[in-house]
Amino acid sequence: MEPSRLAVEEIAVDDGLDRVTAEPVFAKISSPHYHASAMDGICVRAEDTFGATEFVGKKLNLTNADVPGPAAFKYVDTGNALPAWANAVIMIENVHQIDDHTIEIFESVAPWNHVRLVGEDVVATELLLPRSHRLRPYDLGALLAAGHTTVHVKARPKVGIIPTGDELIQPGEEAKPGAVIDFNSTVLAAFVREWGGTPVKYPRARDDLVLLKQAVRQAAEECDLVTIIAGSSAGEHDLTSDVVAESGELLAHGIDVMPGKPAVLGRVGDKPVIGVPGYPVSAIVIAREILRPALEKFLGSAAPVYPKVRAVVPKKIASHLGLEEFLRVTLGRVGEKLVAVPLARGAGVITTMVHADGLMRIPSLVEGLNAGEETDVELLRPIEDIENTILCTGSHDLACWRIN
Amino acid sequence: MEPSRLAVEEIAVDDGLDRVTAEPVFAKISSPHYHASAMDGICVRAEDTFGATEFVGKKLNLTNADVPGPAAFKYVDTGNALPAWANAVIMIENVHQIDDHTIEIFESVAPWNHVRLVGEDVVATELLLPRSHRLRPYDLGALLAAGHTTVHVKARPKVGIIPTGDELIQPGEEAKPGAVIDFNSTVLAAFVREWGGTPVKYPRARDDLVLLKQAVRQAAEECDLVTIIAGSSAGEHDLTSDVVAESGELLAHGIDVMPGKPAVLGRVGDKPVIGVPGYPVSAIVIAREILRPALEKFLGSAAPVYPKVRAVVPKKIASHLGLEEFLRVTLGRVGEKLVAVPLARGAGVITTMVHADGLMRIPSLVEGLNAGEETDVELLRPIEDIENTILCTGSHDLACWRIN
Repeated sequence: MEPSRLAVEEIAVDDGLDRVTAEPVFAKISSPHYHASAMDGICVRAEDTFGATEFVGKKLNLTNADVPGPAAFKYVDTGNALPAWANAVIMIENVHQIDDHTIEIFESVAPWNHVRLVGEDVVATELLLPRSHRLRPYDLGALLAAGHTTVHVKARPKVGIIPTGDELIQPGEEAKPGAVIDFNSTVLAAFVREWGGTPVKYPRARDDLVLLKQAVRQAAEECDLVTIIAGSSAGEHDLTSDVVAESGELLAHGIDVMPGKPAVLGRVGDKPVIGVPGYPVSAIVIAREILRPALEKFLGSAAPVYPKVRAVVPKKIASHLGLEEFLRVTLGRVGEKLVAVPLARGAGVITTMVHADGLMRIPSLVEGLNAGEETDVELLRPIEDIENTILCTGSHDLACWRIN
Repeated sequence: MEPSRLAVEEIAVDDGLDRVTAEPVFAKISSPHYHASAMDGICVRAEDTFGATEFVGKKLNLTNADVPGPAAFKYVDTGNALPAWANAVIMIENVHQIDDHTIEIFESVAPWNHVRLVGEDVVATELLLPRSHRLRPYDLGALLAAGHTTVHVKARPKVGIIPTGDELIQPGEEAKPGAVIDFNSTVLAAFVREWGGTPVKYPRARDDLVLLKQAVRQAAEECDLVTIIAGSSAGEHDLTSDVVAESGELLAHGIDVMPGKPAVLGRVGDKPVIGVPGYPVSAIVIAREILRPALEKFLGSAAPVYPKVRAVVPKKIASHLGLEEFLRVTLGRVGEKLVAVPLARGAGVITTMVHADGLMRIPSLVEGLNAGEETDVELLRPIEDIENTILCTGSHDLACWRIN
């Protein structure tokens, strides 16, 4: 399914951080836009220096004239424009002052010595940035240097978030038995922001096919992509797949990742719809595996990720054949090695994501990992923080304290 | 120098992404806060199931009573609260309906079978998050689950940015020869935002010792850290080190990195002051090497970084002994190997940062790298984007086209 085209916004370059260009950007002006001295010193005609050597000095005369006579010089600082008559710069360290108006040099220089030529950095009309480029701090600098004060960026994709379930309450409401605080929509919204989209939170929808279909149709009209949280399993009140099937097209119910198996994929009109399982860790895995690539497809650009590290597993880890499994792990340095210890696998325990240092992926066709096997772990927080907060007592156990 | 203590702000959990906790956070309520069914099915007293086997069924009677008689059951969905009399759940798949009020089971279950116990995820009063923890999407979820709707975070460190130089003009102003568009302050401001601070841009200060000292004193009063852009070299109008020395204490003028050598470090009152060289690539290196760690010290938490990759250099690269050198490189895949090709080294060419795929660091006491040597390259954009935009024709050259 091709993502629908995002609207284009013209924004100030100063507000451009992390936005994605909507079109190629060409330089309006050159940078430097004049021949500039690259040093503090004097500017000269290179020809006037020819013949000067370590042993044979050449005297030059201070000038302020527009068209000076032969053997002229003028003081310049780094960045100053060269007068039209000059074509080279000599560093101040190599200038021997004789009197207020006369200096002597003991080297000859080539034309354009220590001169930053017009366009050294940017040449007017050159391609500065391609389309679908995520703007970093120095890209903003290059845009300004090339004469732009605004830039055309893709609108942030709008992601509708529909929390469902009769049992849901808002954070802060009294939590009676059976009531579930809706925090999944906050987690999803934060991911959407991190990945460059704009979350649009809809009110909680009750477990009612008619009301759910209404909510999904409204969200599909107003957003670029719709997520429906919970109701994706096979229970009596799990209506998400029916809602998608009856509002548009159901493409898949159930995918081979764990946690996250009961996800629903479909579309309503030309808008992708993702049924996100209600267990928080399942929701996070589906957000990372399905929602994130979808946003990147809209924007045409990948979002930054945490680095991966290599780590060994301290004991055999079993894994379901036919399911790609995501294990939350803590990391500890034991001697030279980084050791990854799996946390509880429960999909309902969001605090395992909080405590995890990384995520380990066991591919679908692998039955598990053997003790001592090395594998990739995607870091969930910077390694500097991990290394700073673990203290291991010995080289054979993993009794680690977190010092914070 | 110990960073001054940042103020503490209480903000909505929904607004917490990427903020840093100001204090440890303890759970207010447990999650679940009631014994919850972990499956769609029926809840029972485990005792009533004892004796049931594959061959010997046990019949149970539907109840809605608060204190039902023996052999009772009640239908529950995932997440429902268990009634006080029940202590186990049986999956609906294992329930054989006999009539509207009676079912039969062919397995006995242990107490708390398929029950999410109170506190399985979060136990009230437990430490949820430590101090100085940078909030990620799932941390927000855990906070809400544990009964918090607000969170205390450290105020973003305020970074004063003072652009200096008579030659500076604002983006959009007419660029006459000798005039330099101030883009460094936009680049610095974007970095500050990326690393968790709040940039405070001051008006351009002229090359005048008295005015500069005024500007620095004002910024030191209003901000947690002050940066002065340009004027850090040794030229006639390079006043930054004098300004710092006369307003507070000059700690260093010149550090052994390249680009970035002429940096100035000092303090005014108890506020750190960084003199950032005016050449854009020097400014970027000093921002990354000095400003970023300073912000992390304030916040007590590292900002995320791009991953590193291993890459080989295709030919000998010389480097200055005694200077840590940062080389901008492009990356290309040649056969199995990632090859890093250095870009021009000029500190004045910001577009080399734009075009670079990564940064290669050559340590101070290394004279260079030999052809074929492998080294770390910090990615400046996601590897997915790099791999997607390079197409190599052969395995022996680096004729790469960027397709965008």
